[in-house]
Amino acid sequence: MKILFIGGGNIAKIVYKELEEHIEECWYYDIAEKDLPCKRLESFKLPQKADVVVECASVEAVREYGIDVIRSGKDFYIISSGAFSDAEFFNKFMVELNNSTSTVYVPSGAVGGIDIIYAIKNFIEKVELITRKPPKAFGLEHLPLEQTIFTGNAIEAISKFPQNTNVSVTLSLAVGDFNKVNVRIVADPNVDQNIHEINIYSSVGEYKIIHKNKPSPNPKTSYLAPLSLAAALKKRIEKLRIGG
Amino acid sequence: MKILFIGGGNIAKIVYKELEEHIEECWYYDIAEKDLPCKRLESFKLPQKADVVVECASVEAVREYGIDVIRSGKDFYIISSGAFSDAEFFNKFMVELNNSTSTVYVPSGAVGGIDIIYAIKNFIEKVELITRKPPKAFGLEHLPLEQTIFTGNAIEAISKFPQNTNVSVTLSLAVGDFNKVNVRIVADPNVDQNIHEINIYSSVGEYKIIHKNKPSPNPKTSYLAPLSLAAALKKRIEKLRIGG
Repeated sequence: MKILFIGGGNIAKIVYKELEEHIEECWYYDIAEKDLPCKRLESFKLPQKADVVVECASVEAVREYGIDVIRSGKDFYIISSGAFSDAEFFNKFMVELNNSTSTVYVPSGAVGGIDIIYAIKNFIEKVELITRKPPKAFGLEHLPLEQTIFTGNAIEAISKFPQNTNVSVTLSLAVGDFNKVNVRIVADPNVDQNIHEINIYSSVGEYKIIHKNKPSPNPKTSYLAPLSLAAALKKRIEKLRIGG
Repeated sequence: MKILFIGGGNIAKIVYKELEEHIEECWYYDIAEKDLPCKRLESFKLPQKADVVVECASVEAVREYGIDVIRSGKDFYIISSGAFSDAEFFNKFMVELNNSTSTVYVPSGAVGGIDIIYAIKNFIEKVELITRKPPKAFGLEHLPLEQTIFTGNAIEAISKFPQNTNVSVTLSLAVGDFNKVNVRIVADPNVDQNIHEINIYSSVGEYKIIHKNKPSPNPKTSYLAPLSLAAALKKRIEKLRIGG
């Protein structure tokens, strides 16, 4: 595989390590020099030889360079799905995508069960994302019972809890409707780590997924998110593809 | 899409309905005439025009026709993953697959969270599949507390609880190791429907997925399994692919 990474930080490094034996050549575009064994591009330019572009930078990077990637016709893997919460950008991106030879992949990221949601999307009534954190994460102390700090749809949640953006937007894209995803943030004195809980209500079944992710070397990112991105890339070359 | 269905029953019917607008031509091979709007083949013969083969019949059908499909070079979607619990068949199948132009897809099926398992497979210590059923499903009455009826690995579970075969084999294929998947069957007086619970223990996080599937028109099959197969097929033509 010949990969251009947009962003050369912690996530790119984990993805590189997972894919190392399959990488023939790689580049990364980043404003700073990073500890990634790929050639650094100091300005954004798509190497003609690259066969896939992997964004592991930020929502802003998807907005800034996403359309250029699509116009190149190369396949594009996106971890910062939060860029698609902007309906105007999303519509423009989809028009370009439908006129290009690219395929865009948004892996499950920091949560799972997207396989269920995507399969039953036409039968879903509601999806809940409940994020529980210890009270001190919200500056609260001696909380006797859990307390809901926020409740709203995915779009409303983004401005107030930007660290949940990619998860709630990926859920909404899988359902195909931002209004069917409810986000609730809870200060819970009974937990000592962040816990994502997803509840899926549908006419074909009810599902609950509870995630206790461990952080990666960058504590803002779980290990699951970069591993999910690496797994999606590995599927390109696998003859037997499980799940999805 | 031009599809050959192996098996023309309930599952094929749901998949057909989900994909209808994308199907240009279709065939089905089945020992009996079925209510499926595709051309019936009375003996197994791969139509040259078909671009994809979809098995929705049985473990036996995969064993009987799977290698022929691989040799044709066409992509192959399999719901009866249980066929791969036979190590000799699996090895033979993989040798053929690695020499062919086919790609084989085993969708998540009647459970979800395969996206998590596949992403973190190298970090998994253990996966548990706990299937809870009302006591009367095991001929038990007046059970005051839950009772474990069976515990063992996926291979051991198959001979005793064949109705769980595809789920436990798909989990094992995603992990990449049959010995890391434990199956437990529980008679539980507190449930009134079948519940699949998956617990994933790994060095990057812990995950729990609880499924309360509703049955499809054939009560032996959940809706989730055929919808998961249909979703995997739809991804062939989608420009924006979410999850996995």
